[in-house]
Amino acid sequence: MQILPSLSTLAPTLRQRREKLAQRVDFPAILWSGQPSPRNFPKNLYPFRASSHFIYFAGIQLPDAAIALDRGQLHLFADEAPPSNTLWHGETPSRSEIAAAIGADAHYPKTELRSRLAEAATLPASDRLTQLEQADFLGRSVVPVADLPPEHRDRQLAEAIVSLRLIHDLSAIADLRQAAACTVEAHYAGMHATAHATTEAKVRAAMEGAILARNFTCAYNSIVTVRGEILHNESYANPLNSDDLILADVGAETPTGWAADVTRTWPVSGRFSATQRDLYELVRLAHDACIAKIAPGVEYREVHLLAAEIIAEGLVNLGILRGKPEDLVAMDAHALFFPHGVGHLLGLDVHDLEDLGDLAGYATGRVRSDRFGLGYLRLDRPLQPGMLVTVEPGFYQVPAILNDPERRSRYGEVVNWDRLSRFQDVRGIRIEDDVLITENGSEILTDALPVEAAAIEQIVRQ
Amino acid sequence: MQILPSLSTLAPTLRQRREKLAQRVDFPAILWSGQPSPRNFPKNLYPFRASSHFIYFAGIQLPDAAIALDRGQLHLFADEAPPSNTLWHGETPSRSEIAAAIGADAHYPKTELRSRLAEAATLPASDRLTQLEQADFLGRSVVPVADLPPEHRDRQLAEAIVSLRLIHDLSAIADLRQAAACTVEAHYAGMHATAHATTEAKVRAAMEGAILARNFTCAYNSIVTVRGEILHNESYANPLNSDDLILADVGAETPTGWAADVTRTWPVSGRFSATQRDLYELVRLAHDACIAKIAPGVEYREVHLLAAEIIAEGLVNLGILRGKPEDLVAMDAHALFFPHGVGHLLGLDVHDLEDLGDLAGYATGRVRSDRFGLGYLRLDRPLQPGMLVTVEPGFYQVPAILNDPERRSRYGEVVNWDRLSRFQDVRGIRIEDDVLITENGSEILTDALPVEAAAIEQIVRQ
Repeated sequence: MQILPSLSTLAPTLRQRREKLAQRVDFPAILWSGQPSPRNFPKNLYPFRASSHFIYFAGIQLPDAAIALDRGQLHLFADEAPPSNTLWHGETPSRSEIAAAIGADAHYPKTELRSRLAEAATLPASDRLTQLEQADFLGRSVVPVADLPPEHRDRQLAEAIVSLRLIHDLSAIADLRQAAACTVEAHYAGMHATAHATTEAKVRAAMEGAILARNFTCAYNSIVTVRGEILHNESYANPLNSDDLILADVGAETPTGWAADVTRTWPVSGRFSATQRDLYELVRLAHDACIAKIAPGVEYREVHLLAAEIIAEGLVNLGILRGKPEDLVAMDAHALFFPHGVGHLLGLDVHDLEDLGDLAGYATGRVRSDRFGLGYLRLDRPLQPGMLVTVEPGFYQVPAILNDPERRSRYGEVVNWDRLSRFQDVRGIRIEDDVLITENGSEILTDALPVEAAAIEQIVRQ
Repeated sequence: MQILPSLSTLAPTLRQRREKLAQRVDFPAILWSGQPSPRNFPKNLYPFRASSHFIYFAGIQLPDAAIALDRGQLHLFADEAPPSNTLWHGETPSRSEIAAAIGADAHYPKTELRSRLAEAATLPASDRLTQLEQADFLGRSVVPVADLPPEHRDRQLAEAIVSLRLIHDLSAIADLRQAAACTVEAHYAGMHATAHATTEAKVRAAMEGAILARNFTCAYNSIVTVRGEILHNESYANPLNSDDLILADVGAETPTGWAADVTRTWPVSGRFSATQRDLYELVRLAHDACIAKIAPGVEYREVHLLAAEIIAEGLVNLGILRGKPEDLVAMDAHALFFPHGVGHLLGLDVHDLEDLGDLAGYATGRVRSDRFGLGYLRLDRPLQPGMLVTVEPGFYQVPAILNDPERRSRYGEVVNWDRLSRFQDVRGIRIEDDVLITENGSEILTDALPVEAAAIEQIVRQ
């Protein structure tokens, strides 16, 4: 049963978005919503998620549809649900009802799309079936925009959409606040569940249960683990031990498709050990300082480097690193323990617009560094009001990094390995919030969730 | 982080399965595990589920792999995880470790597959990317086996695999029992959560939370709704009203891929109204009688028709239908209120082997009926020990059926529409259990979950 959005609130927003697009490109664009993906057999489908570009302009998650955007007009291409659909899926709105709800200027059966495609630009779909349809309908290959020359229309369309989606409008921000609020609830639920949980899976269940209870979905596969040093750990099989830290990176997505992305790290026992507390407070110091720095005009790369410097300085103070913090950062020694970027864009996608490679994340003319301490930075552009970014410094003891012979040789002198061995009860710590750049500075959308060690301990022990 | 199964328990089972396959086909078979499917952008993936055919013989859910089965031998084709994998996903077992765990006779990089494909049979993958790879590697199209002539090797392979997977071995049954036990917990959790739940979403969250807490997954998209007449309703947006029935069709899948499929229907208030109780008890009567009938040699179609007869007779007794039950079933009048089949095969897939069309569900030479009361029957073959089937009679008031002018004309005389209007608080009732055919009769794997109205009420009110 397709739920239609409220016409009065959504349609004007969608009109503004396509008018802004029309100011940027003077050729037609076609955006496909995508096809559901089968799980283990053709009729057992993963929950459908429409293409974010489609959602941005069409406002709904309608499978097997396309929209044509041209000079501020929106034409919807979709087939009516077959009559048998009513038996299995209930009454479905007609195409004309959908068109009215999203303020489409016209609507047609999907086959009509073929006659409108001449000269149209598009962006590659995520699912393979729609990719094949795109190539078939357009009579040309549709390739990742990063591989296209600047004058290609698909690339020009991508750049125009990036310039729109980078700066969230009020409707988007309202939805992003909802995603953030639901995500905060999920983290509270996870902390509260810890006292009686015996496995990672039980904490994850409490967190995702809080998201499902709101009828939201997970924006990405949750990380809920005592092995926080495995950065994208998606296993939940470990038991909880009383001296473990739980690292939980869990974010909700609204039914309209907007995401949040939050990480907290807490002690299973409800009390950080002295070593855990030292490193937790260091990560929190970096987190707070980075957020305090965020404002219009600030280079996000500088936010990343600030986190690196604070972590390097803190590790010197704790006796884990040796040397001057600025020298340590210059030689990427911080990345031994903080090997990822300090954050990324957030919006309809948890790594917003990452389907376009670094087109959104990196300002024109900039490319990824090959430095150990910068190569994983997903965002390198000056911040502007309306952007939403994550701030997520961390500290990890990754065996693959710390035991790597080349790195042990290169950094052997600056690491006090003996001292480090006293922090073995810290595998991974990350603290991540979602930060909206405002006219005057920034606003943390997820600040209803504390970061201070004492506050975290109190929630866990409640 | 890939978790390896225990060698001692799994490998002998897998060896038996491929030896049985070798008794049935004398040509090599290649089975692909499949590729993860992207959600909204290429790196944001749905949780991977390997092909059920691959799991059946390989025992693990390894993405982007293939196995060759030939005369009882298993060769594994998979690439080693790249070194960077360790940073993001932790230590991954090597191919040789995986090969040892599943008892493979040899293992090779995936590219080696190309040199082994001559004359090999296969089955179409679910995901489009793997389908393209199959066609590319084999140099021929791979089409649904239902479209193939009997002498085609792919079809012969499919029939051989059907004959194996139809009859569950002890290892499969052990896993199916786990899926059933977890599913029973989920239904208890849903009933217990109802008293404090205000929406369908909150009940669903409690049920799926119970599944996640065991580190299991959902075998299919849950149905948890007060609109039970929408047979495949996957929306959870409705509020709960005190006179509503909740229909919950929720099943767990073990980490090894084996499924359960259970439905219960309960009153939000904890007490059925008189009309709800009348129809609930009728569906339960059909459920119990069907299960009592199940035994080796029984035609499943007769189980379906028994449900139809009991429902028709009960509706006559309630004054909703008029006429002799056997005449009503002969004219498909029962299907006005029970429009689906009484059940289906269950195993690695919730509709087991449905990727092969009706090859597993329908005995050789049988095809689907076009009768209103039989066309949706997914299983029509004599039952054998080791088969697992669902039994799921129901009663629904589907507007698309009951308001259809053609049906109102055809069945106008046999329905007492006035009397029916007194049962408006019953939108949909279904009771579904998972029943294993044994040597002497049957065993309900999900019988830890009561079906009696009074017992259901008591759980909800606890």
